[in-house]
Amino acid sequence: MIINDWFIEDFNSRAGALSFKIEEVLFDSKSPYQTIKVVKNSFFGNVMLIDDLVMVTERDEFFYHDMLVHVPLICAQDPSDVLIIGGGDGGSVRECLKHPEIKRVVLCEIDQMVIDVSREFFPGLSSCLDDERVEVFVGDGIEYVKNHKNGFDCIIIDSTDPIGPAVGLFTSEFYGNVNDAIKGQGTMSAQTESPAWELDSVAKIASNIRTGFGSAYVYTAPVPCYPSGMWSFVLGIKPDKNPCEDFDIERAEALSKNCMYYNPDIHRSAFALPNFIREAL
Amino acid sequence: MIINDWFIEDFNSRAGALSFKIEEVLFDSKSPYQTIKVVKNSFFGNVMLIDDLVMVTERDEFFYHDMLVHVPLICAQDPSDVLIIGGGDGGSVRECLKHPEIKRVVLCEIDQMVIDVSREFFPGLSSCLDDERVEVFVGDGIEYVKNHKNGFDCIIIDSTDPIGPAVGLFTSEFYGNVNDAIKGQGTMSAQTESPAWELDSVAKIASNIRTGFGSAYVYTAPVPCYPSGMWSFVLGIKPDKNPCEDFDIERAEALSKNCMYYNPDIHRSAFALPNFIREAL
Repeated sequence: MIINDWFIEDFNSRAGALSFKIEEVLFDSKSPYQTIKVVKNSFFGNVMLIDDLVMVTERDEFFYHDMLVHVPLICAQDPSDVLIIGGGDGGSVRECLKHPEIKRVVLCEIDQMVIDVSREFFPGLSSCLDDERVEVFVGDGIEYVKNHKNGFDCIIIDSTDPIGPAVGLFTSEFYGNVNDAIKGQGTMSAQTESPAWELDSVAKIASNIRTGFGSAYVYTAPVPCYPSGMWSFVLGIKPDKNPCEDFDIERAEALSKNCMYYNPDIHRSAFALPNFIREAL
Repeated sequence: MIINDWFIEDFNSRAGALSFKIEEVLFDSKSPYQTIKVVKNSFFGNVMLIDDLVMVTERDEFFYHDMLVHVPLICAQDPSDVLIIGGGDGGSVRECLKHPEIKRVVLCEIDQMVIDVSREFFPGLSSCLDDERVEVFVGDGIEYVKNHKNGFDCIIIDSTDPIGPAVGLFTSEFYGNVNDAIKGQGTMSAQTESPAWELDSVAKIASNIRTGFGSAYVYTAPVPCYPSGMWSFVLGIKPDKNPCEDFDIERAEALSKNCMYYNPDIHRSAFALPNFIREAL
């Protein structure tokens, strides 16, 4: 909601998530799937709102993208082909391209307008979309995954929240298809909501991933612009192994020279869960 | 600020921190040091505002108190005497009393009204103040520390932000006196602001602790009700040792049975810092 030029992300009609003064509305339109706005705030930079929820701010997008992308890619063995579902802003693609062994990144985004808006207002995220290793496909991720068995080493689910167009990206059936779309060995990751404020939802999604994909490791990171500032992700590994110990530390070290958040210590520590989350899983 | 019954913590006139609907104002007064309000919100529970900044919410106070208190107490060798400076709400005292080896907790709070308000509106935090191991002293922490050399095994600085009455609790001179107030071996901790939004401030405080106390280990934890939801703390150890490895894991395991956030894995992982913080320190 917006009152007196202040945007308050309405978490549940009683509690707000991020709030900030709207200094300028740069874009405001409706795609076939959702409403999309871009607003400017001098502290957060440009902010993309989808259905009035904060998707990306220029100031703090690195927390989210580092942790959604680098954890599964470092846990995957010799990854060369990556599929990103959602993530039309380009932030996850940009992070994938920091891995020198990646040869091909397919971005499957359902909403062309997200891509267009990011190209116009978020060049720091979207400019990588012109890289020759990147294929942009506008369409439904659920169908894409079904039709590309054994196609990828890593699948990253960079979705909006489990309401509206993204609902189908949180079912165990979908995660089963993700497993089938991964070549012999590989990994998946997904953003899975706030454990501080929506723990039941985190537990349910993790359970669906465990059922559908076969393994599910919850990890956390701060994402200041999202509700509560504490965010969860789930990593799936095929075949199963310990994601805290069994990863290529040299590759992680080299990568982290180009990261603002991720490094090998962060990789290990992100899987340490507080008691209240452990008990819910 | 409050607009249309919504409280928005005004972080810097452009960006807001926690926001929520005020359903009832339970208390609103001015002490000699600060304005104190207690407001009710059905998602966060009772919320204490000091100078219109969120100090404590019933919903998420455990993140902060677990990490401010248990990290230094587990790193201290056989702690029996603890001093808490600030923290008049009682939350830190409550956590100290979960350590069976603690014989005496002195709470030194400058503002009697904070204690009174907590006794009335935050019984979950303040009821421990009646424990026979607890001494409540209303007065200036700076003077108290100067006058109690070699008095404590652990000193916990549970202050408000480094503006107003708490400014003197962030100087290297004060941290030097904290060192002198600690018996032969011991630890200190302090809350040290948001690394996501106020990194310069975190770096400055850590530097003052290193200069004044002699050692400073920055660690982080989510605190959803504080600006950005990502919070930092500093641990000081005398004599210096590695806080991630050199701690009593059995004591930490036993303690964590009574904690919602803290456990030995969390203890270790809290010291893993993202690159952007490492570079600033």
